[in-house]
Amino acid sequence: MMSEQRLQRASSWTRRRDEKEGRMQAVMRWMSGPVLPTDKTVEALEALVVAEDRIVLEGDNQKQADFLSRSLAKVNPKKIHDLHLIISSISRPEHLTIFELGIAKKVDFAFAGPQSLRVAQLLEDGVLEIGAIHTYVELYARLLVDLIPNVVLVCAEQADQEGNLFTGPNTEDTPVIVEAAAFHNAIVIVQVNKIVDTLPRVDIPGSWVDIVVEADNPYAVEPLFTRDPRHITDLQILTGMMVIRGIYERHQVQSLNHGIGFDTAAIELLLPTYGEALGLRGKICKHFALNPHPTLIPAIESGWVESVHSFGSEVGMDEYIRARPDIFFTGRDGSLRSNRVLCQLAGQYAVDAFIGATLQMDGDANSSTVTTGRLAGFGGAPNMGHDPHGRRHSSPAWLDLKTNADPTLPGRKLVVQTLETFAKGGEPAFVETLDAVEVGKKAGMPIAPIMIYGQDVSHVVTEEGIAYLYRTEGIEERRRALAAVAGISPVGLKAKANETAELRRRGIVAFPEDIGVQRLQATRSLLAARSMEDLVAWSGGLYQPPAKFRSW
Amino acid sequence: MMSEQRLQRASSWTRRRDEKEGRMQAVMRWMSGPVLPTDKTVEALEALVVAEDRIVLEGDNQKQADFLSRSLAKVNPKKIHDLHLIISSISRPEHLTIFELGIAKKVDFAFAGPQSLRVAQLLEDGVLEIGAIHTYVELYARLLVDLIPNVVLVCAEQADQEGNLFTGPNTEDTPVIVEAAAFHNAIVIVQVNKIVDTLPRVDIPGSWVDIVVEADNPYAVEPLFTRDPRHITDLQILTGMMVIRGIYERHQVQSLNHGIGFDTAAIELLLPTYGEALGLRGKICKHFALNPHPTLIPAIESGWVESVHSFGSEVGMDEYIRARPDIFFTGRDGSLRSNRVLCQLAGQYAVDAFIGATLQMDGDANSSTVTTGRLAGFGGAPNMGHDPHGRRHSSPAWLDLKTNADPTLPGRKLVVQTLETFAKGGEPAFVETLDAVEVGKKAGMPIAPIMIYGQDVSHVVTEEGIAYLYRTEGIEERRRALAAVAGISPVGLKAKANETAELRRRGIVAFPEDIGVQRLQATRSLLAARSMEDLVAWSGGLYQPPAKFRSW
Repeated sequence: MMSEQRLQRASSWTRRRDEKEGRMQAVMRWMSGPVLPTDKTVEALEALVVAEDRIVLEGDNQKQADFLSRSLAKVNPKKIHDLHLIISSISRPEHLTIFELGIAKKVDFAFAGPQSLRVAQLLEDGVLEIGAIHTYVELYARLLVDLIPNVVLVCAEQADQEGNLFTGPNTEDTPVIVEAAAFHNAIVIVQVNKIVDTLPRVDIPGSWVDIVVEADNPYAVEPLFTRDPRHITDLQILTGMMVIRGIYERHQVQSLNHGIGFDTAAIELLLPTYGEALGLRGKICKHFALNPHPTLIPAIESGWVESVHSFGSEVGMDEYIRARPDIFFTGRDGSLRSNRVLCQLAGQYAVDAFIGATLQMDGDANSSTVTTGRLAGFGGAPNMGHDPHGRRHSSPAWLDLKTNADPTLPGRKLVVQTLETFAKGGEPAFVETLDAVEVGKKAGMPIAPIMIYGQDVSHVVTEEGIAYLYRTEGIEERRRALAAVAGISPVGLKAKANETAELRRRGIVAFPEDIGVQRLQATRSLLAARSMEDLVAWSGGLYQPPAKFRSW
Repeated sequence: MMSEQRLQRASSWTRRRDEKEGRMQAVMRWMSGPVLPTDKTVEALEALVVAEDRIVLEGDNQKQADFLSRSLAKVNPKKIHDLHLIISSISRPEHLTIFELGIAKKVDFAFAGPQSLRVAQLLEDGVLEIGAIHTYVELYARLLVDLIPNVVLVCAEQADQEGNLFTGPNTEDTPVIVEAAAFHNAIVIVQVNKIVDTLPRVDIPGSWVDIVVEADNPYAVEPLFTRDPRHITDLQILTGMMVIRGIYERHQVQSLNHGIGFDTAAIELLLPTYGEALGLRGKICKHFALNPHPTLIPAIESGWVESVHSFGSEVGMDEYIRARPDIFFTGRDGSLRSNRVLCQLAGQYAVDAFIGATLQMDGDANSSTVTTGRLAGFGGAPNMGHDPHGRRHSSPAWLDLKTNADPTLPGRKLVVQTLETFAKGGEPAFVETLDAVEVGKKAGMPIAPIMIYGQDVSHVVTEEGIAYLYRTEGIEERRRALAAVAGISPVGLKAKANETAELRRRGIVAFPEDIGVQRLQATRSLLAARSMEDLVAWSGGLYQPPAKFRSW
């Protein structure tokens, strides 16, 4: 039987390596070691990429290999067509231009915020096919399993003549993309801002890299995690106070991830004032997994924060981080070391709580940031916004969410969603059916693009109060608890006064007065910083906000 | 208010860096660049480690920084005591000797297979305190959050004079431990088998490493993933046939993780024979996340397997892997690149199915490998043996487990547990209460050490049949389905013939005959390899089994 089976084995076991060697031969005449001259980039891509290849393009919610994406948009579509593009975030116009030109056909991605309308349109026009929409880490995971790439296009700050890379403070996705490619005979092409003799530190070894090319301009990067305290509203401050008292203090939340948004910025700015007055410093909010939010500066300076591990960096925070190595993860050169895979791991498995704002929620507490006509995707939130059933260590907060004394049942991670009952423009945020359901149907998705599933949410906080969903028994009680804090939205109108009173009595719903939060105290004077200038002052001048945030 | 708060800020923000510089100064007289002479190791540890430090010692289920652990056991306990040890796997005698000597006091770990009896004993004697027992990845995640180390002790194959490391085929935990330490001013000490002029490839840059020391002997490594086909029983073959027909074929499982064990070894050896006869090649089992199991060789050689990403390597498989770069992840030097964090990510998020054998299961399908008196821990199984709620992409298998048409409900990962209804020695494997409950209580654990929770299990397979637990509605029906395949164990005796017949009719339980599996065909002649010699022959002589597996 054995010999019969053996006949069927592949004729070669080195196809990927041979293919790579063949392609690399075609560009050797331009190369000096691993260095490709900038003006040969388009020609080199035409030699290194082959039609129908699977390509990873580094483009996440912050940094972008934009020189390489612009170069890819210039290749001859007759030669290179029907590529399968894998990209964390469809963020730049040329990410979609390559589909319009026929260079690429299929895309697997995680997020498409700025380009989400155009993605939906191109999909409808049949110009683009979607493999699937992922969270960041599951997209990386598939690079090792069933989405193994042929060529990857990434970016770094600097390279040396041996191809060693300095990725700088914004490491983000680069290490995992390069590792997946370098060790399975894909071609690794890196745009760098500068080729230098000596790197500040080595982040990725040259033996993992095939080609480095100096870009025409430094790679693009956006200050996505900066929230100007000027725009924080009294309602957000009220919500923040409820979170601090009714959730962080109550469950002793010591380690956490804060999503992007003004709700969490408000919480960060309330710690040194409201939190301090409650005597909570050293008891809650000690360890963070998040990008270096400028609004966290006052809490750091006040001694609240013991450590911050980051997915990426934030524009303007470099000098502040450099001066605070006890708090941030930094290299020998003094600059930040971030790493999206590892920070997502921390945010999934090591923290007590995830908290994020959402735009729309249905009566079962399913939520989504997808709204009509937009295919925005997921990013990283679902990975942190669920209870990881593979967790086995306990913490006070995790154990506090255990509602059953049975020793064969585990504790639970806090997954907190905040939203105002009505969005700007008077649209209710609580709805009968999420827009995501219709969007998913129209896009031909096998299931609707839900950001956070209701079953994974432990707490919902609105300006009305907190629903402690983890304490509810059965779907009907969960719906009633949610309705109790949903105001006069369609979901909220289903609440009955006597049921809500009973839920408050049982501690399943809390209004501000139930947890000692005074609505009248919720004003901007309670914020530790009320402007960008205040944040700069708190940092002792080390934080340098980007121009668009400077109004003084 | 701002100035008032600022008074409370820390007096220094560089304590960790200053502390590290101070300690490093004390060993400078012995150093040549990053190289420490072997005979100065114990003295250096006494200078670099301080009482009550948090120390990570690389020791997982395979490779061991055993020169460093033996050296740590020789330091003066009057000087260095009450260390907090963080270790993936408590595997070697000296890992516990350091507790007996008072050098260490507290431990956070993931697995303690070989030393599990002694761990339980030392805990009872008050010699050792347990922080928590983790899965591998959550332990690493905490290195970035609330278990930030002071010193880490790891191992690699080779280093050069600049401290660059070649970790070789067994990369495993090294990169994440070093990254967590190097970027938060902990001291990184690496034992290497050899210091050389030029490395085969660089796996970890020298700028992440403080000290390299040539060990007295190459680091210890165990062939943990080798199963001699000679010991595969007919019952295991029957179970394997049921898995192939009733689970892999039925749900179109294309990507998966196989646990260690003879059950999964049997499946691997049935693919080229039984699977081939069913015409399943190219349809199932194409992508694996697992260590290079020797029993996978016949499936690879028969063209079943497209890719394998690995946590670590396996003794004796190096030359075979080197010759199959299309299948395995290999570096420019040709040897395997493994990475436990990334493979666990693949096994959690990118695969259709996890399948593993267990020793004991209760009537609710909770299972554990913990048995009386032993604190074995978890390792990596729980991370892969649950449905990750952060997954958003679909696959045919994942969608096939969706039992409700509601578009706001997701699909589900397959989590398959296999066990024989009675273990060797006639002990029932299905029990009223897991031994883990009593062990957890005795060890003072806040919850019982459950390996895989019943709520996370989609399928249970015994020699009696398959329980499709994901299709059951409610806990009572789940219990009945499980009882139907639990034979004459205490759990199985609760089954009622009429209920079982109804469950079979509804496709919630399947006996072999229900899925076309012929019991009489389940004999060893169906295995593609029936001995280690057969595996070597399949590999064309490239696989070189360790001596203890060579009987010819």
